[in-house]
Amino acid sequence: MKLMIDQLKNYKGKEIELQAFVDNIRNLQYVEFIILRDSSGKVQMTIEKEGNENLVEIMDQIPIESTVKIIGKVMDAPKVKLGGLEIIPTFIEATSLSFPELPFDYKKKDNSLRETRLDYRFLDLRRKENYLLFQCETLIEQAMREYCIQNNFIEIHSPKISGAGAESGAELFKLDYFGQTAYLSQSPQFYKQMAMASGFNAVYEIGPAFRAENSHTSYHATEINMADMEISWIHSFEEVMDVEEAWLKYILNRLKDTYGEEIKENFGVEISNTEKDFPRITFQEAKQILKEKFHYIGEKTDDLERHEEELLCKYAKDNYQCDFIFITKFPFSARPFYHHLDENGLTDSYDLLYKGVEITTGAQREHRYDVLYQQILDKNLDPEKLSFYLEFFKYGCPPHGGFGFGIARLMMQIFEIDNIREATFIYRGPTRLNP
Amino acid sequence: MKLMIDQLKNYKGKEIELQAFVDNIRNLQYVEFIILRDSSGKVQMTIEKEGNENLVEIMDQIPIESTVKIIGKVMDAPKVKLGGLEIIPTFIEATSLSFPELPFDYKKKDNSLRETRLDYRFLDLRRKENYLLFQCETLIEQAMREYCIQNNFIEIHSPKISGAGAESGAELFKLDYFGQTAYLSQSPQFYKQMAMASGFNAVYEIGPAFRAENSHTSYHATEINMADMEISWIHSFEEVMDVEEAWLKYILNRLKDTYGEEIKENFGVEISNTEKDFPRITFQEAKQILKEKFHYIGEKTDDLERHEEELLCKYAKDNYQCDFIFITKFPFSARPFYHHLDENGLTDSYDLLYKGVEITTGAQREHRYDVLYQQILDKNLDPEKLSFYLEFFKYGCPPHGGFGFGIARLMMQIFEIDNIREATFIYRGPTRLNP
Repeated sequence: MKLMIDQLKNYKGKEIELQAFVDNIRNLQYVEFIILRDSSGKVQMTIEKEGNENLVEIMDQIPIESTVKIIGKVMDAPKVKLGGLEIIPTFIEATSLSFPELPFDYKKKDNSLRETRLDYRFLDLRRKENYLLFQCETLIEQAMREYCIQNNFIEIHSPKISGAGAESGAELFKLDYFGQTAYLSQSPQFYKQMAMASGFNAVYEIGPAFRAENSHTSYHATEINMADMEISWIHSFEEVMDVEEAWLKYILNRLKDTYGEEIKENFGVEISNTEKDFPRITFQEAKQILKEKFHYIGEKTDDLERHEEELLCKYAKDNYQCDFIFITKFPFSARPFYHHLDENGLTDSYDLLYKGVEITTGAQREHRYDVLYQQILDKNLDPEKLSFYLEFFKYGCPPHGGFGFGIARLMMQIFEIDNIREATFIYRGPTRLNP
Repeated sequence: MKLMIDQLKNYKGKEIELQAFVDNIRNLQYVEFIILRDSSGKVQMTIEKEGNENLVEIMDQIPIESTVKIIGKVMDAPKVKLGGLEIIPTFIEATSLSFPELPFDYKKKDNSLRETRLDYRFLDLRRKENYLLFQCETLIEQAMREYCIQNNFIEIHSPKISGAGAESGAELFKLDYFGQTAYLSQSPQFYKQMAMASGFNAVYEIGPAFRAENSHTSYHATEINMADMEISWIHSFEEVMDVEEAWLKYILNRLKDTYGEEIKENFGVEISNTEKDFPRITFQEAKQILKEKFHYIGEKTDDLERHEEELLCKYAKDNYQCDFIFITKFPFSARPFYHHLDENGLTDSYDLLYKGVEITTGAQREHRYDVLYQQILDKNLDPEKLSFYLEFFKYGCPPHGGFGFGIARLMMQIFEIDNIREATFIYRGPTRLNP
């Protein structure tokens, strides 16, 4: 493994080999200052021109953003801003040469159109905040899995190509599959439920999901990275909420412990409540609060619109000092056929709202074949088309429930990023297939 | 979280609630023995018929493979084979009812055709070995990521839908993308290299890859789960092999420590060498060994065929007591355009063979724009079609290399499973799209 720039402080007075990008060059009359950069930070390399004409000549051929391999001595230099260090080189070699002109100045985010930055996403990702963002995402996803593994979950990789569409016929990408029509998976829903029927106890998956929605909003994408979870042997959907809440707290605590300071510095964000209980209110209570406290009546009587979600989060913040709130017991008309119903015909389901938007839908699922079959009919769906899924429930299936969400959406809310394009490694939308 | 059967030993003399599948029922004249099962094991529940007519009546309505919730007392029962315990129930409730007839006897693997088992994969997965297999896969993948995170890697999720095909035009699934043609990704190759151009230092990804190959062999699938890795700032492809070797040893050690005994018991397999250095020989040396030691000359002069891989593994086992062997420096004609070439025009690449088959291809990549461009021409490819990829190399890119492999293939070799269909959660092939 290469020596990283943030480790140089341990090599004072020593000769080292360093590889890095050329971040900047300041070429003065008697001296040349070169800023070198890698993913861990930056360091100054100083060339006294007199006596080092060969090095100056080599540097003259190396444009900014090229990569170099250098050998030099790490010197204490208290006046140098970048860590009080400088490198005095004895050898410099270009390992790759940048074209002299960059297509845009990637360091100044606001000077370029977003579409230009997305065209050259590989340059846009060179910004320090972006590296931090994906360091954090790496930690978040690993923490998700750690929690699951500590609780005896199995990781699954459900198929992304299927013969039958999952939840609805719309919004599915179609595929030519050796002459047949196949579909890209919208969600691992049916397969994580299948794992429950297989007796897998509890499963999780982090993987892609695809939506053929011709939407151009700041929070839609045609390909998203989803985290999904499903647990067996529950008594109620409350247990699913318990798991999600404990899980999110575990993730946010790990994030805060590891990158809390850097996140504050680079994104101006404090990591959300990691101790408080998330408030839980029913859909009916939510509508009442909206009416009585905010004098707002939304258009939909069986669901929440965006503005209502914002208001309910304000309510949670004001009354519970919490960024999260669970809304439970949505009417069946707003939910898919497989949600479990209570004795009043309401779904044993919930939405989790976070900083103004819904990030998850969760529910207990209907696991009894005959009841599930009836709910399919009640939704005017064709049981024939769902027959492969119905099979899973014929030979015993534990009571179970789970939830899923888009990781980019979670990242947007944690880091208060206003557009999904900025929170995704490579964004895909109706008019963006490249790079 | 529910009480698991393997924890019951800690509840002797206590009343518990347990949820489980009904694994078996033995109904005698005066007593009924019911075997309950969850993912952690099995336990016997005993009903003395006299005085428990209500429980007997309830059990009469519950076919095998249904799920139940019971309340009962855990009793010491040294004569009972399943852990020396039995449960004396006071309450039994069916939480789901199985159809009385199973489509096949999933417990007897060899009594059914593989295709039948795949049709009912959710039942096939109820076999204990299958649960163990996916417990092990969960551990293996988490260990892969642990190693990466300990070494400052970033996890990426590269897009699975792209405007341009990656490495070749053939074997790509085509997609209707809002009127345009898009392709399903064959590998994250180009995007993990993009991350190198972004200065991400080192990245990994575990995710799906798609191959539209009309192959019906025991080791092909149209959708596979791949592990990929790419590291920057290398001096040679030897460093890529060093990382892969250290990484595999880390994984196999974690596996051996956690599940070594159970694997031996259920699969009859000892986990491979976890300490020995993997031998490394060049392609040229390999061909010489095949000729001189095995008197075998393969059909291809620039590549290895299956039988040659087997023989080379035998050579490694006999001479180095190692299940692994690296074969390096393949001719350029057998490798993709982006492999880095040495001064003799041979690729700085390798194959890793394991127990008779190739599991990985790795290489240093060509990271210099002009050389890469020339290699595209040398391969008679069209630089225009690769222009989005070529862009990544225009503005500085660290020397880098990496490798990738199919996780099912690795699982097959570790567990000595002869068919990829048995090593995949849900298999996809040209004639299998369901479930």
